[in-house]
Amino acid sequence: MTTARAPYYLDCDTGIDDALAIAYLLAAAADESAGIEIVGIGSVSGNVSAAVGALNTLDLISLSGRDDIPVAVGAHDPQGGSFRGGAPHVHGANGIGDVAIAKSASSVTGESAEQLLVRLAHEHEGELRVIAIGPLTNIAAALRLDPTLPSLVKELTLMGGAANVPGNITPVAEANIANDADAAAEVFAADWFITMVPLDVTMTNVLLEHQRQTLIDSGRPVAVAVGHMLDYYFNFYVGVYGHRASALHDPLAVAVALGEVALKTAPVVRVLVDDTAGPGRGQTICDLRGIYNGFPEQSGAHTRVVLALEDDFAPTLLARLLTA
Amino acid sequence: MTTARAPYYLDCDTGIDDALAIAYLLAAAADESAGIEIVGIGSVSGNVSAAVGALNTLDLISLSGRDDIPVAVGAHDPQGGSFRGGAPHVHGANGIGDVAIAKSASSVTGESAEQLLVRLAHEHEGELRVIAIGPLTNIAAALRLDPTLPSLVKELTLMGGAANVPGNITPVAEANIANDADAAAEVFAADWFITMVPLDVTMTNVLLEHQRQTLIDSGRPVAVAVGHMLDYYFNFYVGVYGHRASALHDPLAVAVALGEVALKTAPVVRVLVDDTAGPGRGQTICDLRGIYNGFPEQSGAHTRVVLALEDDFAPTLLARLLTA
Repeated sequence: MTTARAPYYLDCDTGIDDALAIAYLLAAAADESAGIEIVGIGSVSGNVSAAVGALNTLDLISLSGRDDIPVAVGAHDPQGGSFRGGAPHVHGANGIGDVAIAKSASSVTGESAEQLLVRLAHEHEGELRVIAIGPLTNIAAALRLDPTLPSLVKELTLMGGAANVPGNITPVAEANIANDADAAAEVFAADWFITMVPLDVTMTNVLLEHQRQTLIDSGRPVAVAVGHMLDYYFNFYVGVYGHRASALHDPLAVAVALGEVALKTAPVVRVLVDDTAGPGRGQTICDLRGIYNGFPEQSGAHTRVVLALEDDFAPTLLARLLTA
Repeated sequence: MTTARAPYYLDCDTGIDDALAIAYLLAAAADESAGIEIVGIGSVSGNVSAAVGALNTLDLISLSGRDDIPVAVGAHDPQGGSFRGGAPHVHGANGIGDVAIAKSASSVTGESAEQLLVRLAHEHEGELRVIAIGPLTNIAAALRLDPTLPSLVKELTLMGGAANVPGNITPVAEANIANDADAAAEVFAADWFITMVPLDVTMTNVLLEHQRQTLIDSGRPVAVAVGHMLDYYFNFYVGVYGHRASALHDPLAVAVALGEVALKTAPVVRVLVDDTAGPGRGQTICDLRGIYNGFPEQSGAHTRVVLALEDDFAPTLLARLLTA
């Protein structure tokens, strides 16, 4: 089965910036000219537990009248470990900045996230685009459930890792990857085309206070909700940037997946994940040694690492959220 | 014992860029106003074997009439491993670009490099500056020989590692560190003030062909010799830069140690070396997470990581080598 619109599956851990990413995706799906369709969403533990993330996701899509999108709960625990409670200092106790939004009347699907992903990959064989903006536990689980998954999926875009910049959980590791380094190692090793959207671009493309205010002032339910959520996120980032602002991790990954961002530097290189117990655990080791020479082609490379964008992302984000 | 001039010990693996570094150091020592004295040089296996490196070093200092400087042979093998033959594809079979220079009549000292270093550290207690531009095997051996070494040495400056740029031996590891990751881990863990001059600055400060030619045209024996050696090095770097040029790894470390380079970005942060057997082995893990906020002070940090210079280094290098 193919569809006229490009079908997207989103895997998330909602999460304030996940909420922004979902808002972006909903807005694009509402725009006929974008030509995309959201065929399913899975949740995974990360910023919050998979269960809480799924409920946040249901509430958000309900605000857009999209209760028809199936939302499946995925892995509670990372491979070989236990979920450690997420990041309430970053995302608030409820994951969405302690903002209360209307509860959806819908429920999660009976399928697990990895079952949903595998089923959708078969239904949209060769067409399904996967966007992963949380730890990669569900994606690795889906690979185990159906090892043919890479041949079924058109491409995988993920927010995660750090290439030529520091990590945010350890000096070298980014949170999504570090939260399940074993799963991430499997996902990067699988034979599919990956676009990696790392901290290199998500930390340097930010939303500022006056931009947040335009979301709140818009009167659009989803934009208003994420505008309020961002207040909490902005406070956390004072300790990172020295002023109120928000990194744009997850929405940038969605925009890249949708082809709505011009990439300035994005070489296709070999990437592996450090899954040792050493100090480098969770690092995305990208072979960027060609940096001084235009990144010559590497045999076996199948990961595009987004290192720089042509333009600041915030205006693109706002344009989507304010015109949906 | 103290001296009017600041005493320097150099540990090297000579090597073409080591030869440049030695030339720089000799020129500074010949300049009364620089106020420095070379009290000893040790050699370690790296670009070439420790034994070959010592002979190259003797020949170079002899060209400057400085046969009085003691040169000691250090470790042939890295800790827990074997020397693998160096990098003849980078430095030539003889380590100095297959250039023949006059053989020194002097011999290496009876001491090992680590014995020389420890003795000098006691003789110049609190004053000795150590510059390490090869693998850190000798420095770690000296730490084991005399664990009080960090309290005796004024500061350690080393060429090595990669912070926010790729490695040159693996995607994340630089050669000096990777050639003896165990020794490097010990050296970075010891309680002394380290200035690390990584690939972040040594790859982006280069010598070009017309500048190499000025060395050859100078008629000064050491400058002419290194100018000819660089021909080989320039050829290697075509594969890196896409054109003939030379990274300035080791001479930059010497210039930084001598305070002759203005540092633009050089935060003091925690650094450790990945000494696992994993894919990150040999990486200098620098905690640069403060990059977005002016690098707030870190407790326990004792390594200054040079990330950017105020000015291009090549003119400073040439000024030294051409006016000695």
